[in-house]
Amino acid sequence: MGGDFAPDAAIAGALQAILELAPEHTLQLVGPTNVIRERVSALSTGELAPAAALADKLEIIEAPDIIEMSDKPTAALRSKPNSSMVVGLRLQTEGRSDAFISAGNTGAQMAASTVLLKLHAGLTRPAIATLFPTARQPMVVLDSGANVDCSAQELVQFARLGSVYAEQILGRPNPGVGLLSIGEEAEKGNAVVKEANQLLRAAGLNFLGNVEGRDLPNGACDRGPIDVVVCDGFVGNIILKLYEAIGPMISGMLGKALGTDEEALRNALRSLDYSEYGGAPLLGVRGVSIISHGKSSSRAIKNALRVAVRAVETGMSDHVGRRLSEAAGQVQQ
Amino acid sequence: MGGDFAPDAAIAGALQAILELAPEHTLQLVGPTNVIRERVSALSTGELAPAAALADKLEIIEAPDIIEMSDKPTAALRSKPNSSMVVGLRLQTEGRSDAFISAGNTGAQMAASTVLLKLHAGLTRPAIATLFPTARQPMVVLDSGANVDCSAQELVQFARLGSVYAEQILGRPNPGVGLLSIGEEAEKGNAVVKEANQLLRAAGLNFLGNVEGRDLPNGACDRGPIDVVVCDGFVGNIILKLYEAIGPMISGMLGKALGTDEEALRNALRSLDYSEYGGAPLLGVRGVSIISHGKSSSRAIKNALRVAVRAVETGMSDHVGRRLSEAAGQVQQ
Repeated sequence: MGGDFAPDAAIAGALQAILELAPEHTLQLVGPTNVIRERVSALSTGELAPAAALADKLEIIEAPDIIEMSDKPTAALRSKPNSSMVVGLRLQTEGRSDAFISAGNTGAQMAASTVLLKLHAGLTRPAIATLFPTARQPMVVLDSGANVDCSAQELVQFARLGSVYAEQILGRPNPGVGLLSIGEEAEKGNAVVKEANQLLRAAGLNFLGNVEGRDLPNGACDRGPIDVVVCDGFVGNIILKLYEAIGPMISGMLGKALGTDEEALRNALRSLDYSEYGGAPLLGVRGVSIISHGKSSSRAIKNALRVAVRAVETGMSDHVGRRLSEAAGQVQQ
Repeated sequence: MGGDFAPDAAIAGALQAILELAPEHTLQLVGPTNVIRERVSALSTGELAPAAALADKLEIIEAPDIIEMSDKPTAALRSKPNSSMVVGLRLQTEGRSDAFISAGNTGAQMAASTVLLKLHAGLTRPAIATLFPTARQPMVVLDSGANVDCSAQELVQFARLGSVYAEQILGRPNPGVGLLSIGEEAEKGNAVVKEANQLLRAAGLNFLGNVEGRDLPNGACDRGPIDVVVCDGFVGNIILKLYEAIGPMISGMLGKALGTDEEALRNALRSLDYSEYGGAPLLGVRGVSIISHGKSSSRAIKNALRVAVRAVETGMSDHVGRRLSEAAGQVQQ
C-alpha cells in the first residue's frame, strides 16, 4: 500500500514478475485483502492476463493498517501494528518469506526492518544502497538517505556493506571503493571523512581513496573504475536527488536549443533515472528488505523483485554477516 | 601566474576586458614582469591588437614568487612573500587597487585574503559564492569549498553574505534563500542543518526553508525561485563538481544514442558550465577578492573582471559590512 502509485504499481509489477521470474518463486501481496483482490483481477488483462494462470504463485495476506508517507516512522509502527510494513516484514522473521519490498515510507521501512529483522553483529545502523547510473556502469552509493551525522566507523561499515553488494548483486569481483570527498588527497575533506580515509586504508578492501563529485558521472577516478561510493546519508540523498533531476532539465534545455524531440531525449537519458533500477537494498539487516522509490512504476517494482530474488539466491545477508565477523576477527588479532 | 593556463589566459582575458570595460578602469597584471611583458606583446595580435592602444590602462607589477597549485596555503604565504597572490592583495590594502582576481591556488587566495584584507565584524570565516546554472536563472551556492565542518551560525552568516551578493551583483531584490537539506520539512537534515533552519527563520531574510537536491537544477522550490543556496563547503564542493561533470557526460551519451553532433550538444549545454561565469567572490573579506576556476579560459577571466567591477561599483563589501552590523544590532536589541 506504499508509494505514490499504490497499490496498482506494486500489483502490476508483481504480476509482471510472476510471468518473468522462475516458477519456483511465490509472491506475497500484503495489505487490505479486499482492495488487493479487486485490483489483481482488474489488472490481470492485456499482457498481464497470462499471470492469472499462475494465481497459485500469488498469496494475498491481510494487513489492514496503512502507514502514510507523512507518518512519523516509529510512532506509525506502534500505532499501526497491522500495517503492510510490519506484517510483511514479520513474515520473514517467521520463516514464511525470504524478502520484503516496499515503495512506502522509507523511514518506517528502515525502523521496522531494523527492529524486526535486526542488524548483523558489528553494525550500529543499516544503510540504503542505491544504484547510481554513470557513463560506464552503475555504482552503488551508500548511505543514500538513511543516516545523517555518521561516524568514521560507520562510513567504514558502509564500505564493507557496499562491497558485498557490488560483488553479490552486481557481480563485480574485488569492487573498487571510493570515499566521497572534496579532493583526492587523504587530507582533504571534513573531519569524519579524513578519519574514515585512514580507517579505510587498513580495512582490507579495494579502497581507491577519496573520489570527487566530478568522478561520479564517469563512474571512475584516476585509480580505476568505482563500484562503491561511500558517503553519509545527508550527502548521498542530496547528490541522488540532484542527479535524478538533471536528466529532465537537460532534456528541456536541449529540446529548446536544438529542436530535438524531448521524448527521444528523455528516452536516451532514461538510464540516468535510478528509480528504474527498481530497488535499493537496506544493507546490514538479517534478511532482505528492498526500498523502492516512492514514485516507482510497475516496471521499477518488477526490477525491485529481481533485486530481491538475486539477494536471496546469492545469500547476500549471510555474506554480509560473514564479512563483518571476518573484519571484526582481523581487528581483534 | 595562477591557473592551468597561466599566464596567457589571465593576460588575454585582461586585454579583452580593457577593450570591453569602460575606459575609467585600470588593470594591474601582477607577476614576473619580464614574463608578463613578453606575453602581453605576443598576445596583442588579431582581435586583441586594439588593446595595445590602451596600454596606459595596463600596469605591470613585479611579483617574482609563484605559488603552485600543490603548495600548502599558509606555508606558501610565509615562504613566498613576493608571490602575485600576496603582492596583488597588498595593493588593495595600500589603496592602490579596488579588486583582486586569481585563478591560482584557492586555499592560498583564501588565506591571503583573510589575513591581508581581514574579515568584516561578526564573521568567523569567508565563503566562496559560486554561480550555479539552472533551468531558470543562476543561483548563488555558498559555501562552495572554502569551509568544511561549519556551525549552524556560520551557515546563517553564509545566508547573509549570499543575500547581499544576489542583490548587489545579480540584481535580485529580496532574494530567496534556501537551506540545502534532505527534505523540505524543518526537522529534516543533519544536526547542524536542523539548527540552522531554526536560526534562519529568525534571521530577517527571505528564507524559503529547506531545499532539496532535486530543486537545484530547476532553480526553484515549491515556495518560489531560489536565489541563494546555503550549505557547508564539503557539500557545496561535491555538488558543484558533480554538476560540472554531468554536461560533458550527457553530451557523450546523447551523441551515441541520438547521433546528435557532440559539438552542438556541448554548446547547447555550455550554460551549465559554471566556470564560464568567471569568478566566485570570496565573500566576507573587507575588499574584493574573486576566485576563478583553475581551468579558466581568457573568456572566464574577462567575466571574472566584470564581476569584480560590479562588486566595486555597487560597493558590495560595504553592503556586507552594513548588513552584518544591522543583523548584530537586531540580535542585541
